[in-house]
Amino acid sequence: MSDEAARGPRAPAFDPRALPESNATAYPPPLRDANMMRWNRRISRHAGLRNFAVNLTRIAPGGQSSYRHAHSRHDEFVYVLRGEAVLETDAGEQVLSAGMCAGFTAGSGDAHRFLNRSAEDVELLVVGDVFPGDEVSYPDVDMQGRLQEDGSFRILHKDGTPY
Amino acid sequence: MSDEAARGPRAPAFDPRALPESNATAYPPPLRDANMMRWNRRISRHAGLRNFAVNLTRIAPGGQSSYRHAHSRHDEFVYVLRGEAVLETDAGEQVLSAGMCAGFTAGSGDAHRFLNRSAEDVELLVVGDVFPGDEVSYPDVDMQGRLQEDGSFRILHKDGTPY
Repeated sequence: MSDEAARGPRAPAFDPRALPESNATAYPPPLRDANMMRWNRRISRHAGLRNFAVNLTRIAPGGQSSYRHAHSRHDEFVYVLRGEAVLETDAGEQVLSAGMCAGFTAGSGDAHRFLNRSAEDVELLVVGDVFPGDEVSYPDVDMQGRLQEDGSFRILHKDGTPY
Repeated sequence: MSDEAARGPRAPAFDPRALPESNATAYPPPLRDANMMRWNRRISRHAGLRNFAVNLTRIAPGGQSSYRHAHSRHDEFVYVLRGEAVLETDAGEQVLSAGMCAGFTAGSGDAHRFLNRSAEDVELLVVGDVFPGDEVSYPDVDMQGRLQEDGSFRILHKDGTPY
């Protein structure tokens, strides 16, 4: 390998794990705590991509990726990079090891989340759409979400009242 | 692990390497040979996703992912899952090991391809757009491409004449 290559990746390539990670969530305070062990790195944003989103998601032991949810218009794709992830859908749970993947089609109504019940980190590569108007339903908790025209994600109670 | 989980992934999850792979290409015969060592598994299509494309691309030793190209309207994202991939862009070459990634923004004009100069397979997870109207430019060979409204990818000579 040349000296130049040995210096590590340079744009448009990069090491995704060199980016800062965040456990920020749009969930309101009463429901926020369950998501604090999920850490996101916004890879596609770093790369300047605007047509879809790619995130590197790390779920610490005991954490969840999100509450179980379904998208009305957005497709979602998840590839397990590391660890043993528990995928929960309407049909129940299954364990996905590294190298497995799953696709969640827009409008299917089948809600999903990933859990980490192991003692090691789980890493997921998560691909999704970014266009506005997507409605997100949460069958297990009193939330509904909508991606607004300005890119913000607004969460309301199921009866439409704000948090 | 329960007996059910031990049976392996079930929909909407799956093992992407259990899907058939293909080295089919839209390139015309004189330029096709260089792509015969690149094998694609169409993961997102298998999952029924329609808003973006995710492919698992295997490049055998000596192969290339494509000719060096740039998209006019499509974003592209590549994550190296396995092996040592050589990324070639306008700025030259660099080696990307497993865990590195790269983003190629629509309209940048910077053309890229991945090469495998190692003795082991390279595996890439490749994410891209699917909407029609994308123009693909190839600075190194006599081709230009366009994704048609019907989803087919049409390749012409640079002077606009058909192959």
